[in-house]
Parts: sequence; structure tokens; C-alpha cells
Amino acid sequence: MSELKGREKTSSGFYVTKEAPINTDNPIKTPSVPAPDILRCAYMEIVVTDLAKSREFYVDVLGLTVTEEDENAIYLRSLEEFIHHNLVLRKGPVAAVAVFSYRVRTPEDIDKAVAFYTELGCRVERRKEGFVKGIGDSVRVEDPLGFPFEFFYEVEHVERLAWRYDLYTPGALVRLDHFNQVTPDVPRAVRHYQDLGFRVTEDIQDEDGTVYAAWLRAKPTVHDTAATGGDGPRMHHVAFSTHEKHNILAICDKLGALRLSDKIERGPGRHGVSNAFYLYLRDPDGHRVEIYTQDYYTGDPDNPVVTWDVHDNQRRDWWGNPVVPSWYTDASRVLDLDGNLQPIVARTDESEMAVTIGADGFSYTRDEEGEKGFKLGNTL
Amino acid sequence: MSELKGREKTSSGFYVTKEAPINTDNPIKTPSVPAPDILRCAYMEIVVTDLAKSREFYVDVLGLTVTEEDENAIYLRSLEEFIHHNLVLRKGPVAAVAVFSYRVRTPEDIDKAVAFYTELGCRVERRKEGFVKGIGDSVRVEDPLGFPFEFFYEVEHVERLAWRYDLYTPGALVRLDHFNQVTPDVPRAVRHYQDLGFRVTEDIQDEDGTVYAAWLRAKPTVHDTAATGGDGPRMHHVAFSTHEKHNILAICDKLGALRLSDKIERGPGRHGVSNAFYLYLRDPDGHRVEIYTQDYYTGDPDNPVVTWDVHDNQRRDWWGNPVVPSWYTDASRVLDLDGNLQPIVARTDESEMAVTIGADGFSYTRDEEGEKGFKLGNTL
Amino acid sequence: MSELKGREKTSSGFYVTKEAPINTDNPIKTPSVPAPDILRCAYMEIVVTDLAKSREFYVDVLGLTVTEEDENAIYLRSLEEFIHHNLVLRKGPVAAVAVFSYRVRTPEDIDKAVAFYTELGCRVERRKEGFVKGIGDSVRVEDPLGFPFEFFYEVEHVERLAWRYDLYTPGALVRLDHFNQVTPDVPRAVRHYQDLGFRVTEDIQDEDGTVYAAWLRAKPTVHDTAATGGDGPRMHHVAFSTHEKHNILAICDKLGALRLSDKIERGPGRHGVSNAFYLYLRDPDGHRVEIYTQDYYTGDPDNPVVTWDVHDNQRRDWWGNPVVPSWYTDASRVLDLDGNLQPIVARTDESEMAVTIGADGFSYTRDEEGEKGFKLGNTL
Amino acid sequence: MSELKGREKTSSGFYVTKEAPINTDNPIKTPSVPAPDILRCAYMEIVVTDLAKSREFYVDVLGLTVTEEDENAIYLRSLEEFIHHNLVLRKGPVAAVAVFSYRVRTPEDIDKAVAFYTELGCRVERRKEGFVKGIGDSVRVEDPLGFPFEFFYEVEHVERLAWRYDLYTPGALVRLDHFNQVTPDVPRAVRHYQDLGFRVTEDIQDEDGTVYAAWLRAKPTVHDTAATGGDGPRMHHVAFSTHEKHNILAICDKLGALRLSDKIERGPGRHGVSNAFYLYLRDPDGHRVEIYTQDYYTGDPDNPVVTWDVHDNQRRDWWGNPVVPSWYTDASRVLDLDGNLQPIVARTDESEMAVTIGADGFSYTRDEEGEKGFKLGNTL
Repeated sequence: MSELKGREKTSSGFYVTKEAPINTDNPIKTPSVPAPDILRCAYMEIVVTDLAKSREFYVDVLGLTVTEEDENAIYLRSLEEFIHHNLVLRKGPVAAVAVFSYRVRTPEDIDKAVAFYTELGCRVERRKEGFVKGIGDSVRVEDPLGFPFEFFYEVEHVERLAWRYDLYTPGALVRLDHFNQVTPDVPRAVRHYQDLGFRVTEDIQDEDGTVYAAWLRAKPTVHDTAATGGDGPRMHHVAFSTHEKHNILAICDKLGALRLSDKIERGPGRHGVSNAFYLYLRDPDGHRVEIYTQDYYTGDPDNPVVTWDVHDNQRRDWWGNPVVPSWYTDASRVLDLDGNLQPIVARTDESEMAVTIGADGFSYTRDEEGEKGFKLGNTL
Repeated sequence: MSELKGREKTSSGFYVTKEAPINTDNPIKTPSVPAPDILRCAYMEIVVTDLAKSREFYVDVLGLTVTEEDENAIYLRSLEEFIHHNLVLRKGPVAAVAVFSYRVRTPEDIDKAVAFYTELGCRVERRKEGFVKGIGDSVRVEDPLGFPFEFFYEVEHVERLAWRYDLYTPGALVRLDHFNQVTPDVPRAVRHYQDLGFRVTEDIQDEDGTVYAAWLRAKPTVHDTAATGGDGPRMHHVAFSTHEKHNILAICDKLGALRLSDKIERGPGRHGVSNAFYLYLRDPDGHRVEIYTQDYYTGDPDNPVVTWDVHDNQRRDWWGNPVVPSWYTDASRVLDLDGNLQPIVARTDESEMAVTIGADGFSYTRDEEGEKGFKLGNTL
Repeated sequence: MSELKGREKTSSGFYVTKEAPINTDNPIKTPSVPAPDILRCAYMEIVVTDLAKSREFYVDVLGLTVTEEDENAIYLRSLEEFIHHNLVLRKGPVAAVAVFSYRVRTPEDIDKAVAFYTELGCRVERRKEGFVKGIGDSVRVEDPLGFPFEFFYEVEHVERLAWRYDLYTPGALVRLDHFNQVTPDVPRAVRHYQDLGFRVTEDIQDEDGTVYAAWLRAKPTVHDTAATGGDGPRMHHVAFSTHEKHNILAICDKLGALRLSDKIERGPGRHGVSNAFYLYLRDPDGHRVEIYTQDYYTGDPDNPVVTWDVHDNQRRDWWGNPVVPSWYTDASRVLDLDGNLQPIVARTDESEMAVTIGADGFSYTRDEEGEKGFKLGNTL
Repeated sequence: MSELKGREKTSSGFYVTKEAPINTDNPIKTPSVPAPDILRCAYMEIVVTDLAKSREFYVDVLGLTVTEEDENAIYLRSLEEFIHHNLVLRKGPVAAVAVFSYRVRTPEDIDKAVAFYTELGCRVERRKEGFVKGIGDSVRVEDPLGFPFEFFYEVEHVERLAWRYDLYTPGALVRLDHFNQVTPDVPRAVRHYQDLGFRVTEDIQDEDGTVYAAWLRAKPTVHDTAATGGDGPRMHHVAFSTHEKHNILAICDKLGALRLSDKIERGPGRHGVSNAFYLYLRDPDGHRVEIYTQDYYTGDPDNPVVTWDVHDNQRRDWWGNPVVPSWYTDASRVLDLDGNLQPIVARTDESEMAVTIGADGFSYTRDEEGEKGFKLGNTL
């Protein structure tokens, strides 16, 4: 990992390189067989402890569409989706994530996924009939980083409700955008996910080359998933898109009207990373949901990779608004394929919170000689 | 001051009454002569220490239109304004507010203002030719609370640029909306400004009847000025309106792009009080500027007065986001008619910051039995 | 009526004067008694032929709030309103307007209204208990132009739902903004409504001084009512406000989703007159409803009066999009105080449609030497 | 081509199938060699007759960024672009399109393009140094439909200005979205472009199977290009994206302010096809430019293909607003590789304008028994 100073700095204050500037000295083996061709993040299955309360949050407040439901599970989708679901709420004793599920390009990619993870020595389970309703032939694995991943192609088509404006709420969620995973060693995770076919679009580093987070994409947006440094494996958040920024503000307004403003953890704001407009909520079990809009096209193979200095106070919020500590510390546990909690491995690299918040942290607004700016009012 | 509990509580969590629920046992005398008929807040004159830097902030960043300028002063207006200016920047040694200026209905109202303040024993100075460019016959006073107020009718008309969309920026400021004054004894200030013809639209109280702030209007919006409890007389902020919420977000985005995000002090967010969307900036001298949009019509004489419980965490920000301490503590000094700083009188009532932030403060999201909610992540 | 050429032309292509440039040689008598002090347009009562169908349009599609309803009438209000209603739908055999109702400043203004119209020889009917639910002491008159007007002060307060974002739809209507009346002789109407206390903010004329329409305000917006030249008395439209432009687009999108796009008569677009963003719909009986947002403050007594040249193609639509003929020709009949249709008097002045549309009409985009612009594609 | 009635009709009134429902009995030969792997439409080169006037339109009015310019050509890009340009304005005697240029995935895809078109017997010209500034090894061809197409991979990277909000205008263009080509035989064109690797996302047909237009994508949006039925080869339009709908409205407002509203040909409105929000402008030479935002993700191989009935009045405008005749009839000529105008072949199938507008055309709002709706006011 080279020093930031050696890179091309943009007029916006971050750096660009032509290739992902991340290396690891502790890599996971690269399989000899080809990886499955991943199209996009497709759905997340989460365990919730009170199905009715979670339904209230995701359906009545956020307005996701119920494709199907029974006493144990609710299958939800966004308005522009044509596959069966983007989120499964499953009733269970402990709040956790059951699976991060990706859609692949062809039925044969399931075979490839089986071979890929088998060679890595991972636990692999395939079900021709699928693990959940609406999805056919699928494979679930415990990936080398401890995350439960699923791959599928076969899926039940449902009506894309994009034109059904009579069903839109002011804060309408139109797409699943991405996942975000907490993992202790970011470069190791990035290298592995590159083997799986993901491409890095942005990352956060410091001058010593410590990598705090990286964003990885299959579809040509800024990410389908991201690796955030921290004790893991844990799930940081799942993100849905709106069309416009006012839709995100409308969700905040509605939460205020319902006297649920304590569900707003961070934002709304403009990200530095991704340039998207964002909001972070916490569901009744504490699972974090991001509402997200307007990042940029990344589909060219030589798409410039953006690196942010961890001390740049605009990296996480372009307006310099502070990141609340819970956003750094809290995350959802993930399950193994038997439904048990995966054990947690602690991060040994420095934490982004420690180096940027509080007495020991230092962040600048302007990286200029003499005067670096500070954020008024947040110097607690 | 009656208890909050005795009032009609709305389904939104605040209270309404038909008349302003504020009384004082230490009133300023009500003059026997009629008050001038105030139309609206019209402009503020502020002293800035570096005229070029302030021009950069107000013209290049915020996009106000220069009506006229010389080496000592810049006269600025918003896009929908047809009077000469809404803001005067005057070069001076100490950053402060020179005047809060209101437009009155007729030339004769200047005579009324003279009589009104003369009877109150205030210092009164009238100039037929006006105190600043573009304004004719005016009177300036040091009001009983120590604020420099001006009243005028005669004014030079300039072109209303509302239709000149070629001049609009993404964060276009279209109107001056209001002033906000810091004063130690809010009920006393409110009673006096009611004598001057202002009407209360909203206020913040606690169960013991302590009043922390009140909003007062001439034109039929939520306010032309507000009385915020604190050491005073000081100027809390001056506010300009945009048409839509995205315009306010655009100002934040631009400040980020200019690496001036430290000029953002608080927000953007949705106010509980006024229901408006807001943002607070600090200019190069620390003068606070609010950007504001979409409050409601208040022009009926029996417009319901809204009272917020000081412990309602959604009163200042409907989304429950924290108010930064500087927003409570910092304010601009004001000048007397000779241009000297007015002395400060300390607030003796409890401060809103003390009762709502930190170890001693308590705020709720939901005022319900058993469970009152709390704001995740902000429990520092 | 002076020539347009003699006036001050703005950089936006229209003209401004300090006083309304409208005179009439056929005035209605000015009463010797004072006019009632009108606060604002408050509600319209319309007769609809199918109450269920109208409820679907105004409640299910447009999202107005039902304050109260029975088998014969539905009382509706907008989200920021605190008086009982802004619109009454009353079941009846013939679609028409029963009353244009204005709120006055004090109970005594009802007496003034009685005296004012009595002196004019108009039919006047006062009811202490009100004519409709929620409204107390009121007077209804057949005004000198044949319109049924009502004035009231006493009204039942209901909850202002401005903060209830859980009730907002994407196209939420927040305020009643104005009425628009069709009348054959615009200058005569304007002069009379000025006697009633309204002030002219804008108008449309030609070089010969023919006045095609004028806008009149009580509250400080561009209008509470307007006089549109045509066979009358008829009601051209009633207008509700949204907060932002996307709210208006959302109404169009929803009408498309419901396969009711034929309810969209004109727009959406930007008005030249008023500078507001607009949309015109037709309800199930053909009553025209405008959705409107973002005009400008007009509350100063010397507010510049804007005059548009009838041949300026941007006067009705700032983007030059054509006005459909039905918008010029169709309007709702109005009732007398017995509930019978008022007879129609034909306009004798030239019609705006005739002088601007089709083979005989000429409109320019740019009023410049040599090249005046034309609208591509609309040269049918 | 099967009948519409045999397909699955959605609740929104259009039809979906799993595969493109378009066949041709007059196909262009499918080459035996693989097609180049197209990433996306990348730029268009247009000939303009007055470079200064065109610069005013594209730079001063629309706000595109000048990457480079000289006396003969201007290279322009959108704010989120990192390749050298998205539009080249080249000075020339006759307004026309010089090339539709696509970016391919690898340098080797240029070889594939050469082989592909050589086998088709097309004129092919390759230049290692590129045809225009900023672009390296490229091939230009006269494709079997007569269009000048270019393919390249090598390109100069420039700064992506996405974060430079200080450079944004209210109508900021952030991406090149798509091209649109006029061609006489739509099924024949579709079949050929499918050979080239494009996928159909939507189309317009009638009950007899006549295809009026089809949309084709490389990147996962609704299109990179479209085939519109008409005399061709001609260029119908080139489209740029904004982030939000208000950005498009701002462009209209600005054109009004500049008294250039006659440059607005059609819209703004909501498309049925693509579900995007749109506006069509005409540049100083009559070249048509669309401003476009918010279509949907189409990247899955089994993405449902949408078919619209040509008589569905909401297909072209979801709000049922009329399409102006010029939009159907006007288009830009295209050049061969020598810079001469390509000859025009007339459409022999029925024209969409003829079957939907005027006395012979019939369009419905609702496809229901008994009552089909009609658009008020447009029944000229």
C-alpha cells in the first residue's frame, strides 16, 4: 500500500488511481476455477425477533411491498423490482443476518459457485428447490470471511410496480442498492472479493496504508457490497434506493410524525464516498438500513478508483457532519448455515472511529498549509 | 403561565392555544400612542471585519445579488425582492449587528414609531434622507431590550429578479424571511413586541412555565423575528428562504466542494417549531445565517398558537438530531446608535441547553407511559 | 389605459408599474360605506352530480382530508388548514358553484359586508348560524358581477395537520391558494374588487389597452381571486398549493397510474403570470382545479404591478407551451342564492384565445427587431 | 409477431414478455464472428453550422463542461464523466451527425468490430490514433442501416467533476444516457442490433404486429440507443441525464428567462416507455437533445420486456399530453465516412403519427369496455 502523497489528487480533495490501491500480505487463496458471474446483490434474509413489529417498520413505515407472507416470514420487494423479493424477514430468537444473496448471470453459475467455494474449503450447501420461497436452484456457503453468502439464478418473476404511482409513498423505495459487511482485515477481504469478481470503486486509507473500508461492485454502481473495518463477520447495513433526495427527507419527516425519530441513527447527508445522498435507520431489532440515492456509473473497466484520506472530514459526510459513535460500533451478527451465530474476530488494525473522533482523532476540512478548518460546534 | 398539561395536545405531540400563553410579571410599559404598522422584516445591517471575505461568502457562495457597493459597504438582495436591499455588509473593526430594519405600511408610520419609542424613553434618531443607500425617511432606535431597530417606508425600487432563472444558482435565496434575537427574559420581550404589533405563533416552555423561546410575526409566516432566551441583546441569526428543500441541500454540497463544510454549523434538518426545513451557516465573522423553507400561513387573527415542551426532543429538530452547543451559546453582539457594542445582560432563567443536553438534560421522543424513546448514537 | 410601450419594461420581457394600470369607463358604483376587511379566500362550495365519484377524485386521488361528511355533502380541507374546510362538495342535479367564500378579519366585518352590498342593491342573505357546517355568522350575496360571494369570521377550529407527515401523499395539497372567476368586462370587475379591498398584482393587456385578465389579492400572495375575460359569471378554477414542484408531478404520475390522465387538462408548467408552477385538472363534473406552488410575496402596498403583453407567448406558460382551447372556453356555471343558475353575459371585448391561437393569433417568444422566435412543433 | 392480446398484461396497462417480441422477415445477415463487447454509448459527434451559437447553447445554456476546444471543434462532457468527452461539436457546412460512438470493453474489441462489419460488407475505417482528440485506436463504419458508428476503448481520462458542486447549475447534466436513431424498418434494425449485442427492453406495437419503435441497451438502463420508425437513417436525438426532475424544470425556466422557450419542442413530461422524466430541446441547428432522468435497472438477462400498444395514449407521455408533430417528423441527417449526407430510405410501414394523431388516429386512456377516456382540450 503506497502512500497517499504519491497519488494523483483531484480538485475535490481525494485521490484517484487506475487500479485498486489495496494489497494484502495475508491473502486468502485464489481458487483455480472460475468464479460465478455475479450480476448484483439481490436480497438479504434477516432474522427478526418480533415479526409484527418488523412488518410495521418495513411495510407501514418504509412502504416496501409484500410479495408473500406467512406466520414465520415476510417477503418484501422494492417498487422497481421484478424478482420475488429483496428482503426476507424471518422470525427467530436472535436478531441476525441469515444470508447475503446475489443473483448470477446463468443457471450454470451455481455450479461454478459450488466449485469455487469447495476449492476454498468452505462449507457449501446447494438446494435445487431453493432455501426460500420464490427462489429456485441456489447454493449457500460460509465464505472464507465467515459470511453466509447465497447465489441463485432461478427466481419467480413478479410485477414490476415502477409505473404504479398510486402505490408510491413520499419516501418510496425503488431498488435494493447494496450490502455492507464488517470484517477485521479489509485488504484481505477486498482481495478475496476481487477473486469473486467484484471491482473496487472507492476506499478509505491513511498515510501509512491502513485501509479502513473499501467499496466493491458487480453492477455498475459504486457498490453491491462494501468491506468496513471492524470486529466481524457482522452486517453493517442493507441499503435501498429512492429516486430523489426529497424522498429520503420524507422518510425522516414521517418518522418524526410517528414519534419514531429515534430510529434515525445518522443523517440525512451527502456521502463523500460514493457521492450519494444517505440516511441510516435502525429497525426494531437494531438492524441498520440505509436509504440511498444518486451515486454514479462505474461500469467501465478502467473506472477511476477513488481513495479518501481517513483524516479528510468530508469522506463520510461531505458536509462535515459528525458520524455518531454507534454507527462505527454497532452491527448485526451473522449466522452460519445451521442458523447459529458466527463467532467474532476482533480487528487489530486501528479503528476509523479512534483515529477520527474524540481527543485522539484529527480530521481536517481543508488540507492546506497553515489552515485546515474545523467543524464548528462539534468539538465536544 | 399555565401548565402544559392543562392545554389541548395535538396528535403531533405539541400543544395549541387560541392566544399566546405567555405572561410576564416584569413588563415594559405599554405606550399610550399607537405602534407603527409593521409590514415585515426588511433588511439587516451587519458589520464585518473583512469586506472581501464576506462578499465571497454572501455573493460567490450564497449567490445574493449586489444592488450596489463601494469600498465600505455592499448592498445585497434576494431574487424575489423589489426593495433596494435585504442585507448590508459594512466594513468595521468589530463584527456586530448595526440594525434590524422593518418596513412599515405608510410614511406616517415613521412618525408613530418616533412617538412610540419616545414615550418609552428610548434613544430615537430620525433621518429624512435615511441611514443607508436606497432607503429614505427612517428612524433608528435603541429599543427597551437594547436592540437597534429601524423603521422605514420610503425605499428605492429595483428589479424583482424572480423570473431571471438564468441568474439562479442551485441554492438560490429568494426572500429574506426573518431575524432572531437573543434576550435574557423571553416573556418580557414577547410582551413588548406584542405592544409593537407582533403576534406570537409558537413558543417553547416547560411544565413550570419557563419560556425558552417565542416566535413573532408581522407578515403571515411563522415569524419576522423571534426571542431566544440567553445573554443579550445579541443577534442569533438572520434567515433567507429558498423555494425548495433541494436548494438547501445544494448549498451544503457547494460548501463541501469548496472545502468550506466547517461553515455548516447545524443541519440541514426539519424544525419542529415552524415545520420549516432549515440549515445554519456561520459567515466569516461568525454571524449566523439560516437558510429556511416552507413554514405555514399564519395570517388569521385566531391562528392557533403552538407550544412545545422543552423536553420534546423533536421541538428543535423534528428528526431528533442533536442541536450543537455552539448554536445555543454563540451569537453576534449588537451596536447602539453610536456604533458601540451594547452591554450584555445575563439570562437568569434556566437555559435550554442545560435542561436538554448532557448529563442533566432529559428529552423524550415519545411522551408515553413506560417508554419515551431515545436517540440512538447521540448518547455521548 | 395607456399603451404598453409607455411603461417600464423589465429584463424579463414584461412591464411594471407602481399602480394597477386598469381603468373602466363603465364602473360599478363605489359604496359610501367601508368594505369588509377580507383576510383570504377560505373555501368554495361546489355542486357535484355524483358525490361518490367526486369523493374518489378529491379524497382518494388528490388526498384532501375529510373533516366531516354525510350523504349530501363532504367537507374537505388541506393539510395546513386549521379552519373547518376549504372545499364543500354538495350533491345536486347540476354541476355548478354555490359560493366563493372569504374569511374576514373580525365578526364586525359581516355587518360591513351587509351594508356594502345593500348599498350596491345586491341581494344579501345573512345567517347567524351559517350556511354550512363548521361556519358561524355569515352573509351571502349575489355580487354586482353575478357571483355568489360569502363572508364569515366565526369558524370551527380543527387540527392543523401540517406535521402529520404520516398522512402526506406524494402530491400532498397543503393550502387553498385562490379562486379564478370568468367575467365579460375585466376592467369593470377589477375596479369593483378594488372597492372591496383587493389589490391588483398582475394583468394581461394588449397595446390598445384591452385587458384580458387580472390578478387580485387579499393575503400577500399573487392572488386570492382573478378576473379572467370571458362569458360570465362563471368559475374558471379553484387552486390548491403543494410545497414543491415534484408534488405536482406526482399527481400527474398518479393519474397516469390510475389511467385517469385525461383528467389533466393543461400542464404541468411554469406560469409567466405569478411565476408559479402549475397544473390544471378537471374533476368528474368538469370543475377545473389548479395545483399551484411558489409564487412570490406581494404584501407591500407599493408592490410592483406586472403587466404582460397578450402576444407574449410566455405570459401563460413561461416555457411557451400552448394553452389548450378548452382552458379558454370551458368554465363552471355559478348559482344564485336560490340555487338556480345565473344567466351568462357574453364578452364583447376580444378573446385572448382568438388573438393568440390559430390563424389569426400571433404570439412572440422574443420581442426583438427582426427575429421574434416561434414555438417549434405547435404550428398546427 | 404475435398479437398483443396473447400476452401478459400488467396492472399498468402495458404487456410484458420474457423475450423481445420482435421478428423480421427481412433480416440482415448475422455474422459468423463474435460482435465487439459494447459497454455503453460514449459520445456523439455532430456537425453544426455556427460553432459560436452552438457553444452558447451547449455550454452557456445547458452547462456542459468544455474539455478542449479550437476554432473547428468543441469537446464537451457531463459532470460525472471521466472520459474525454460525450459530445463533439464540429463546424461544418451542413448540420448532421458525423458519428454515434460506443465504448467497448477491451482494446481487442476493436479487432472484433473490424471483423464483424467486414463480414457484413460494410465500409470500415480504422485509425490507431483515433478520429478525434482524446480517443485512441478506433474504428468507424457505415453500418448496414446506414448509420456512422464508432467503437473505441482507448481514451484520455479527465477529472470526474461529480463532487464539484460549485460547478453545478440548477439544470446540471451529469451523464450521457442514450442515442435514438430513425430507421424505416424497426424489426430489421432491432434484429441487427441484437446481433451486435444490444438487448431489447421496451417496444411499441399494434395488434397487427407492426413495430413502431424499440429500445435497446448495452449498459443496464432502458437504452443506449433506440430504433424509431421513420424515413432514415436519421438521428432522432441524443440524451443527457440529470439527477432529479427539478433539474429538468430548471432548464425550461432558464430557457424562458433567456427568451429561448421556442427551443423547447416537447415536454417536460413523464414517459410511459422507460418511465423516465423527459424534455426535448432543439439546438440552434435543429439537432434534438433530450434531457432525461430516472429510468430503471435492466441488467438481468431475463429482464421483462415491455410492449406498449401504439394506441395507448400514455405510451409516449404517461400524462397523456400530446406529442407535437415535429417530434415525429423532424430528425437530423447522418453522414457517411467521407462526410457526405447518407441518402434517406422511406418508411413503408404505417407511421406512429398517422395512426395516433388527427382525424385518423385513435388513442385511448383506459382500455376498458364502454369507456376509453379521451384527453380534454386536445381534440383539435
